[in-house]
Amino acid sequence: MRQRRAAVMAIGDELVLGQRLDTNSQWISARLVERGVLVVEHVTIEDDADEIARALRRLSERVGVIVSTGGLGPTRDDLTRQALAHAMGEELVEDEQALGQIRAFFESRAMAMPEANRVQAYRPVSARVIPNEVGTAPGLAAQVGGARVWCLPGPPSEMRPMFDREVPGSISTDTEIATAQVQTIGWGESRVGEAIEDLMARGGEAVVGTTASRGIVAVRIRAIGEGCRDRVQELVREIRNRLGPIVFAVGDVSLQQACLDLLRQRRQRLCTVESCTGGMLGEMITQVPGSSAAYLGGWVTYANEMKMREVGVPEGVLADEGAVSSACARAMALGAVRRSGADWALSITGIAGPGGGSEAKPVGTVWIGRASHDGACQTRRFRFRGGREDIRAWSAISALAMLRLGLLGEEMDLLFEEERRDS
Amino acid sequence: MRQRRAAVMAIGDELVLGQRLDTNSQWISARLVERGVLVVEHVTIEDDADEIARALRRLSERVGVIVSTGGLGPTRDDLTRQALAHAMGEELVEDEQALGQIRAFFESRAMAMPEANRVQAYRPVSARVIPNEVGTAPGLAAQVGGARVWCLPGPPSEMRPMFDREVPGSISTDTEIATAQVQTIGWGESRVGEAIEDLMARGGEAVVGTTASRGIVAVRIRAIGEGCRDRVQELVREIRNRLGPIVFAVGDVSLQQACLDLLRQRRQRLCTVESCTGGMLGEMITQVPGSSAAYLGGWVTYANEMKMREVGVPEGVLADEGAVSSACARAMALGAVRRSGADWALSITGIAGPGGGSEAKPVGTVWIGRASHDGACQTRRFRFRGGREDIRAWSAISALAMLRLGLLGEEMDLLFEEERRDS
Repeated sequence: MRQRRAAVMAIGDELVLGQRLDTNSQWISARLVERGVLVVEHVTIEDDADEIARALRRLSERVGVIVSTGGLGPTRDDLTRQALAHAMGEELVEDEQALGQIRAFFESRAMAMPEANRVQAYRPVSARVIPNEVGTAPGLAAQVGGARVWCLPGPPSEMRPMFDREVPGSISTDTEIATAQVQTIGWGESRVGEAIEDLMARGGEAVVGTTASRGIVAVRIRAIGEGCRDRVQELVREIRNRLGPIVFAVGDVSLQQACLDLLRQRRQRLCTVESCTGGMLGEMITQVPGSSAAYLGGWVTYANEMKMREVGVPEGVLADEGAVSSACARAMALGAVRRSGADWALSITGIAGPGGGSEAKPVGTVWIGRASHDGACQTRRFRFRGGREDIRAWSAISALAMLRLGLLGEEMDLLFEEERRDS
Repeated sequence: MRQRRAAVMAIGDELVLGQRLDTNSQWISARLVERGVLVVEHVTIEDDADEIARALRRLSERVGVIVSTGGLGPTRDDLTRQALAHAMGEELVEDEQALGQIRAFFESRAMAMPEANRVQAYRPVSARVIPNEVGTAPGLAAQVGGARVWCLPGPPSEMRPMFDREVPGSISTDTEIATAQVQTIGWGESRVGEAIEDLMARGGEAVVGTTASRGIVAVRIRAIGEGCRDRVQELVREIRNRLGPIVFAVGDVSLQQACLDLLRQRRQRLCTVESCTGGMLGEMITQVPGSSAAYLGGWVTYANEMKMREVGVPEGVLADEGAVSSACARAMALGAVRRSGADWALSITGIAGPGGGSEAKPVGTVWIGRASHDGACQTRRFRFRGGREDIRAWSAISALAMLRLGLLGEEMDLLFEEERRDS
């Protein structure tokens, strides 16, 4: 049982003190779950060799696989090597091959190896050094009690290829885990939860849960053991049936990916014109490899002079109604669709805060426009809550949701339960 | 001692399985550290009442303050309430006032309360319900063993105001903690580490560490106890002296914020024209409130037709040299600076992958241009490593680094150690 359970450790003062966001634990967990290993805990620990060793020993009694990241750098606050040796009850020794690889890394860049990097060639006696093909920090593979331990470097660009090369091939499990996600946009989390409440009861054949993130509600399904794939597939079908048009994808598919797929099926192209989001919508769309097939690009019309000169928003609209208005969102979207020759244009103009709000247009007021090449244009007002980043992200997601409805020819009464009152 | 130490818990299957990134733990930790409470551990646990209760009890023996997020929603997989009651050895009771507040939340939106939301009004007998002014999930304040426990909702827009209203006023410490960060761009982490190696020795008066993230190397300093603020300030001065022009800020200041400050001091304005980053540079710049004072906006010239039509890249440049070339980056930046009337333009064109690379221009090849209103233009080639998102983020950061050098009139030989060979 323990062999099929894993824990993920992130090591670093900067993480535990909140100076930096840990993204490795999520990435590693998703990879382990794909391989049928159930992740049951993440732990983040400061750069303290005793505490790291203590956590390694505690987790080695709970799980069979531990993956840590961080603390393998060349500086004095990198203590994972020492902590691992301590947890194993072993000494550190210099690994000649590892030292050669670190030297070679610097030589290939026509640099001498800084003396500080020498410490990266040390390993606990019975541990194995994992070469780093991207950076200087080698990883370590070892055994602590009943658990296999991999210590990987912190930078994701070094950690990820090392994980993929080393870990999946070494863990084999005899129990299947099947997971699925049904992605929805358009209802709030409790409305989704009510529609599938019976399926979410604990103790059933599968674990069904929901999570909401800026308008997107994902229904997650997980089952273990024989027949789990079929059970999960059956649940996916049932959930799709119940939730209908709000389901935009099954699996780890973003809303922008789903929109791009719809555009490509129709051989249509999109452009964007953004004010308060400053490029976020374009950035989200181009996260998807191959987005160039359906995305032309667009404008960041942050200043009013850009709105007028580049997409032809009339000066009178800005003077009379202001930049955060239906008329401005409409002029932006129609100007963009005409200039670009795209089939669709999305426009966003709003007040992301913290300043700039008024009684009539409080912070969070955002107008979104959706124009099509035939000159049709719909605009919609939203009032988003939260901070500047929340408001901007909700805006970009909502624009994509409006595009999706346009592409499907759907007219839904609401996008987000919380916004019903305003939109 | 224990009163000054805290642990942060994040609760949810979606977190531990890697389906979703936890950003709450970082935010809460930074807030606690600001108040002089040292965060020593983050833990992420699945939606399992027994495991959550076990973690609460374990942490209550290690720290005096525990803040959890998540698991307070209306659906059946939200089990934090039960787990807290279990850890306290108490029953759950319905809280009338809380129920009234949840009802009022829905009424203010002209909706009936879904029956599912009723469970959110339950609390362990001796716990206190914390009203939620933004959403439906009330928080809980309680005592588990020697630790004060706050259970807060998962959505950041609900959690953050609740934390700020409830927690800081309730924790008082008699020991000061002082922290500082010195932000640098231009050297690799080991070169920075060598320059301050003696200051990073463990056991000194203060803890000094470095972290690197996509070109930005932050030097973090932390000291505890009497005189800690002075010690930290002295170290900041010393580190600034040693690192010189690569220091762009002290404190939690982003590179884009530092660039905007320089622009504003000079009363100059910036525009951007992005290909492979698709709007990321504009998005980063407009993360900063008030960026409109120095940022005009720009173009996302993702398709070649946008490059030609909108910023005047000659067709011959695209035909002869391709979109990923010095000539294209130059034409983009010069076209943008002319069209926009800005003082500076930054252009980015590259191959973010995973497809589109060739032997001559492998994935990660990015040209960045920096033009000024007098017609001067510098272009620079980079070869970034990592995945699509890494390459795009390095590109945006590097463009800002080039802008900073331009604003300061500095010519540095390299931006990033790893890129020295190519740039």
